[in-house]
Amino acid sequence: MSKTSAIAEANSAFYEAFTARDLQAMEGLWAERSPVICIHPGWRPIFDREEIMASWNAILGSRMAPPVRASEPVIFVNGGIGFAIGYEHILGSALAVTNAFVEEEGAWRMILHQASQMANADEAEMPKGGAVH
Amino acid sequence: MSKTSAIAEANSAFYEAFTARDLQAMEGLWAERSPVICIHPGWRPIFDREEIMASWNAILGSRMAPPVRASEPVIFVNGGIGFAIGYEHILGSALAVTNAFVEEEGAWRMILHQASQMANADEAEMPKGGAVH
Repeated sequence: MSKTSAIAEANSAFYEAFTARDLQAMEGLWAERSPVICIHPGWRPIFDREEIMASWNAILGSRMAPPVRASEPVIFVNGGIGFAIGYEHILGSALAVTNAFVEEEGAWRMILHQASQMANADEAEMPKGGAVH
Repeated sequence: MSKTSAIAEANSAFYEAFTARDLQAMEGLWAERSPVICIHPGWRPIFDREEIMASWNAILGSRMAPPVRASEPVIFVNGGIGFAIGYEHILGSALAVTNAFVEEEGAWRMILHQASQMANADEAEMPKGGAVH
């Protein structure tokens, strides 16, 4: 499997865990030997792995949690880090999202998730010509 | 100079160009041989280098451009990528920001800038214990 395919799969696994509200899967896909950072929309950055998991526990455990739909991301590798830039659609609003991954024991694991509220959800379209593979 | 010091300098140079509204300096500090991505607050991601520069031209060239103040970032290196995670303060509101850099010909150049509006500017404080160096 190519690196970009493997990163696309890791990114998909993130959204599967998100959609299924599967905290155990979410926990398993974050890196264990690298610094990790999570910036939820509107939140301050979280730098601590346990605190990141607590935030996901709060988000995924809420009965009010709205469904999330992720667009096809733009994926590339630079300096050993895999980047997936895409959109999340939640209740008619859109977020611009960077997910970054590093390889740990053969698996691409998340080191960064940053989701930014977009002013105009209609702009949440991938660039013409498709992904930067 | 250590890698983290060099990345901190590159990150400072970004905010100096921003504050001075120096488009030429801004242009020079973005990577030339890597994919680059810029996500301004509320905007869709921009994937094209020329389009990124046009966006900075619009932002830095505006007479309405408010002053920006950047906090001390958390800096770390993973693989060949340098990350600087920090805050920007603009007119009483705060943004959570990821800047990422790659080394090109001995200089750390920007490959990613993502600024997310924070819901609560009072939370824009670095974690206790200081940066992850």
